[in-house]
Amino acid sequence: MARRKKYKFPKTTIERLSYYFRALEDLSKRGIDTVSSEALGGKLNIKSSQIRKDLSYFGDFGKRGMGYDVKYLLKELKYILGLDREWSVVIVGAGHIGAAMANYDSFEKRGFNIAAIFDNDEKKIGKEINGTPILPYDNIDDFVKQNKIEMAIIAVPAAAAQAVADKLVESGVTAILNFAPVAVQLDENVRCLSVDLTTKLEALAYYMSYSQDKLWKIYS
Amino acid sequence: MARRKKYKFPKTTIERLSYYFRALEDLSKRGIDTVSSEALGGKLNIKSSQIRKDLSYFGDFGKRGMGYDVKYLLKELKYILGLDREWSVVIVGAGHIGAAMANYDSFEKRGFNIAAIFDNDEKKIGKEINGTPILPYDNIDDFVKQNKIEMAIIAVPAAAAQAVADKLVESGVTAILNFAPVAVQLDENVRCLSVDLTTKLEALAYYMSYSQDKLWKIYS
Repeated sequence: MARRKKYKFPKTTIERLSYYFRALEDLSKRGIDTVSSEALGGKLNIKSSQIRKDLSYFGDFGKRGMGYDVKYLLKELKYILGLDREWSVVIVGAGHIGAAMANYDSFEKRGFNIAAIFDNDEKKIGKEINGTPILPYDNIDDFVKQNKIEMAIIAVPAAAAQAVADKLVESGVTAILNFAPVAVQLDENVRCLSVDLTTKLEALAYYMSYSQDKLWKIYS
Repeated sequence: MARRKKYKFPKTTIERLSYYFRALEDLSKRGIDTVSSEALGGKLNIKSSQIRKDLSYFGDFGKRGMGYDVKYLLKELKYILGLDREWSVVIVGAGHIGAAMANYDSFEKRGFNIAAIFDNDEKKIGKEINGTPILPYDNIDDFVKQNKIEMAIIAVPAAAAQAVADKLVESGVTAILNFAPVAVQLDENVRCLSVDLTTKLEALAYYMSYSQDKLWKIYS
């Protein structure tokens, strides 16, 4: 059952591993010890063959006809996903999205601790959101360095996003979740994921139009 | 150059079509008439072969050695994505995420009009967010029916999400964007996309751990 290391798999595998992790946590809480890929797939509306394929990139986790050991697979996924440690995160921008992120309780449950929120609005500085202080943006450099922050969430207007990203990277941040509706250009060794909420509505619009008069089909 | 209708392609293709659409809009605004898949790929950090493959599911849009006609491809993508019409959307939940969605100006630019926000908090009902009224949740059924709303954004706590989704579907909504950190079970003919913001941070955690001591690689 040694971990296997393959070299190529799609990005969407990582997202699905998160879903497997959640479903397994739920099974574990309910005292269930083993689960088949079929049962896990039924729960998540994902094909069992997809689950087996996704997991096979990382190792042999199940026994044929026996299913997966829930606790063992949870532990392995925790390691694979990098959730076996805590991450300190800063949020830049105390607007609605920044506030929503600071209030998102699931982050802390997964080991993502929001250390501070930065803004340049004097009226916001000094206040708190969900117990997290809003600090002056001018101090972000020192704060990131002193607290060895590696991750940041950018929730500022599009026009400010690149400058904020550059400052974060200069200070030592190496992973960024970007909510600003603009692509930021960064050094290759910085990981940046963008969340463009409009693309989600566009995907729904696509599906709705498709269901009405188009023939294209999707596989997941 | 007739539209081709293929029957199987991955979900991620739809999301990339949105990105192509944005990049082409930007080129069009700057007065650029043609673009190669290589140039488009360079702009978006997506392989040119991926772009050609994605577009090939829907038709022949480029001439070999000539690149794509920007205006023509824009028009076709608009049709394919279902953006050649307006969509009326309601938001359920006037908390931080609901407010962030109501303030997300890109929605309106793409033809997604937020018709109303629903909440059951008396202190919020009657107020507006970004010009959109907050209405009593008890009236959602009538409002959706009278205004023939097809799309909804769920931004309520996990515990309330399933009941809200059921009510929306009963009233006639057929597409849902779900921000509640829980899977909702719906009829097959209802389209539901979930946005679980924690999975994004988990993906970053994965990439960060990977870059440190793991060997698995990703292709996009």
